[in-house]
This record gives sequence, structure tokens and C-alpha cells, in this order.
Amino acid sequence: MQLIKRLDLNDARLLLEGARAKADEINVPMCIAITDEGGNLIAFERMDGGKVTSITIAIDKSFTASAAKKATHDYGAISQPGGPTYGIDSAIGGRLMVVGGGLPVSVDGDVVGGIGVSSGTPAQDREVAQAGIDHFIATL
Amino acid sequence: MQLIKRLDLNDARLLLEGARAKADEINVPMCIAITDEGGNLIAFERMDGGKVTSITIAIDKSFTASAAKKATHDYGAISQPGGPTYGIDSAIGGRLMVVGGGLPVSVDGDVVGGIGVSSGTPAQDREVAQAGIDHFIATL
Amino acid sequence: MQLIKRLDLNDARLLLEGARAKADEINVPMCIAITDEGGNLIAFERMDGGKVTSITIAIDKSFTASAAKKATHDYGAISQPGGPTYGIDSAIGGRLMVVGGGLPVSVDGDVVGGIGVSSGTPAQDREVAQAGIDHFIATL
Amino acid sequence: MQLIKRLDLNDARLLLEGARAKADEINVPMCIAITDEGGNLIAFERMDGGKVTSITIAIDKSFTASAAKKATHDYGAISQPGGPTYGIDSAIGGRLMVVGGGLPVSVDGDVVGGIGVSSGTPAQDREVAQAGIDHFIATL
Repeated sequence: MQLIKRLDLNDARLLLEGARAKADEINVPMCIAITDEGGNLIAFERMDGGKVTSITIAIDKSFTASAAKKATHDYGAISQPGGPTYGIDSAIGGRLMVVGGGLPVSVDGDVVGGIGVSSGTPAQDREVAQAGIDHFIATL
Repeated sequence: MQLIKRLDLNDARLLLEGARAKADEINVPMCIAITDEGGNLIAFERMDGGKVTSITIAIDKSFTASAAKKATHDYGAISQPGGPTYGIDSAIGGRLMVVGGGLPVSVDGDVVGGIGVSSGTPAQDREVAQAGIDHFIATL
Repeated sequence: MQLIKRLDLNDARLLLEGARAKADEINVPMCIAITDEGGNLIAFERMDGGKVTSITIAIDKSFTASAAKKATHDYGAISQPGGPTYGIDSAIGGRLMVVGGGLPVSVDGDVVGGIGVSSGTPAQDREVAQAGIDHFIATL
Repeated sequence: MQLIKRLDLNDARLLLEGARAKADEINVPMCIAITDEGGNLIAFERMDGGKVTSITIAIDKSFTASAAKKATHDYGAISQPGGPTYGIDSAIGGRLMVVGGGLPVSVDGDVVGGIGVSSGTPAQDREVAQAGIDHFIATL
């Protein structure tokens, strides 16, 4: 039998809160998604002005980061032409995201979920996702 | 040019809050989704214990209710064998939901969004969705 | 070699025009789709107030009627529980529509395309689709 | 509550009209799609000789441009190997288009919809889309 550590809804709200604060600070309305360690959605918010395309992209970045236990920008680095995972971006009906902005959330070495952010540049998305994690971790 | 009224994120949170309170009251952890008047997701929460299958079902109930401007239980009533919309439940890749728990959100006669709830019985889902609307409307 | 008769864009506009006039007359804003005899879209209009869910439903009703050479309400009749095509509504990823409002367009005994209408009751949708055909045929 | 500006059907027809005129001028039959600011289809025309593959491509270019508030050729520029959004072309089930020919339609600084064109070269598609916008804007 396995015993799995998993984000709960309160944890997800803390992740959202930290990400939202950074999005407000850099003045980019974002879509923010939180998934559990199985890749399944726990919470989502589209800030006013967040992009409609970013709904699915944020959810899929979080899905990828949590379920593959890998940041989406790390997938981006190894998915370039000639790279070992080249072409993986179209896997799972296109859900596997290789664009930055999806980060696994780890506690004591275990991936317990993920956060995915979209609507800014990938660098902004990643910064906002990291701020969500930093805020959450600070509460532990 | 059309001028459209649409739920904002703060409205969506009020809808979530009202639904969650009722879900707690009846002791059924729910998935709750809020969409705008075009059917696009604004906010989502899976309460601890909410069903994984209900993630998509709640989102699609809210999509249906907002984008078709009709409660999903009303679709259920007219989609029975022999009914006028029999078979519509598999439309739009199966996203059109005819199971109760999806309600349009109307303000001053205009549909401005929707709420979809799943994890309980359809009657419970509908009760929780209605509680979300009642709470939101009370704040206007 | 086959020689195929097919609606052109001008024909499609006449079908739209006739359908729109009836939709205005009965005061139901509709989504109206015209497909060719291969089921491929030629023209589409969502009247102001037409339902977002009806975009796909109108297109798929027209697809079904033209590509299967059968009115969608005729599929509805034979797809009831115990009927010969029971369950066919979920075929083709749910694109095969068995709800009324999709009609093949025939000229001299050949199906040359289809029209699909959605946003009203299936009876209204069918009436509007028929009005499109009547208007088009009257110009031949 | 948000108040949103959105293209109406008459606006969509003006966009189609301007695009069609340019397509006729350069003698390339096109598929032309108009979406609202939420990415949902308002109007579509496939000119006689337009490509069947271009039906979906035109619709998805317009979806991308309106829902992401960004021209599809701008996505193309930043999605090359090594670029920040490399791999985003397979997002949203492949609906996110990075090939030129999709443009957001803006009025007074707000994105109110989009236009997507396909069947020519991407440069021709983009020229035709821009002609649609120019014609529409000239009527305001």
C-alpha cells in the first residue's frame, strides 16, 4: 500500500494567493491552475483580463508539471530539435506542455502537486508560478 | 458592436463561496465551476474529497448552463427517450450536460455566466449550485 | 470518374438568407450552418443572441444531414431505445446529430449539401432550416 | 461585473466583406472566419475553391488571435526552436495556431474579436485578414 502526500484545497488557495499577488505586482492578469500529484485539477482562477486560451494552457502546464514531476521549461530545454524529448509537446492530445510556467510543488522531497500559469510571457508565467510556491512553502 | 455583461472574478468567488457553504452544510464535498457568459472558465474548486470525474463534469455543466442559457436539469427533462432533444447529451464532444447541477446565472434578465456542481446526487448538485447563486445575488 | 453537384458560396448565402428571415419572423436568434455534400462547412452565421453551444451543434447537424443524406429528426426517430440506430448519437466523436434541425439540401434528386440550425426548440430549428431550403429552391 | 465590447453579426459581415474583396483581388479563394472576443465563432465563409483543411485552420487562427489577443504570426516568431513559446502550437488540442493569418480585431484599445484566414500562403492569408480589419474600421 502507498501513502500519498497531496495538496488540499487550502494549500491550493495559498498557491493561488501567492501567484495572484505577484501577477498584480507585475500587472499581468493571469490564469492560474493548481493540480494534485495525479495531475487532477484542484483550483483555478482567471483574473479579469486573463486570456481565454490560457485557461487550458494553465491547466495543462500544471497537469504536466505535477504528473510528470518536471517543470515545463525543463521539458522545453530537452524538446528542441535534436533533443531527447523532441516532439513530446503534442503528446496526450497536446496536453503535455513544454512552454515555461508550469512547476511541480514539492514538500520534503515529494511532489505533492503542481501550479501552472499562463497569459504573460513564459518568463512572467514562471515567475508568478514560483511566487505561488514561495508563498505556500512559507506557511508550512 | 454589442455590449455584454459578464461575471468578474470577484463575482465568481462569491458564487463559489455560497456553493461551498451549502456543500459543507449537507456534508458532500463538491467540485464547483464558474464560467462566463461565453462558456469559458473563470474559477474552479474541488473540495477535499470531491470526485476526480466531477472536475470535467462540473466544468461542462457550467459551460452548458451559461453557453446555452439553460439549466442542465431542464435539458434532462426534454432529452428523455421520445423527447425533443433526445440524444443531445453527446453533442459538442459530450460537453453538453443534461444531468442536473448546472445553472445559468442571470442579472437583470441577462445571462452573465453559469455555475456547475458535481460529486453529489444531481439533486444535491443543483441545490448547491442554487445556493451559490442565491449568495451572489444577495450581494448585488 | 464522378461528377458531383455541390452548393457554391452563393447558394449557401441564399440558404442562410431564407433561414435568417424565418428566424427573425419567429423572433429566435439562431446559429445557422451550411455544409457541402461532403459534410464540409461552406458558411456559418451566429445571429446576435444565438447560443454559443449552438455553434458546434448547428455545424454538426448540417454535417450529419449532408454527409449522411438524412434529416437529423429522421435519425432521432430511429435512434430511440430499441430502434435500429440506437446509440448512433455518440458516433464520430458525438458529431452525428439525432436532434431535429439538420436537413439535407437536394436538387434534382441529388443531395448537394445540408443546412443545420440551432438555438430554438428542435421544431423551431427545423422550421428555420426548411425556410432556408424553400428560399434557395425558389431561386433555381 | 464586467462590461465587454463584442463584435456583432453586422460587424462580422463587414470583416468578411473586406477580406473577400482582397481575396478576389489577389485571386486566391479563401476560408475566412470571424470570432468574438471569447474565441467563439460568429461567421464563416469558404469561397468557392477554398481548401477543406482551411475550414478548421481559419476558425482556429481566429480563435487564437481573439482569445489570446495576439496575431498568429507573432506567435510564429516567438515559437521557433529556442524561442520562448516553442511547442505552443500543439496546445489546446492543436487549436493554438502559430501560422500567420489570424489577427485580433481591436476597437479603442479593446480586443473585440478576431479574424482568421486560410488557403493561401501565410503572407497572403495575413494580407487578406488585414484587409478585412481595414474595411471594418473604415466603417466605424
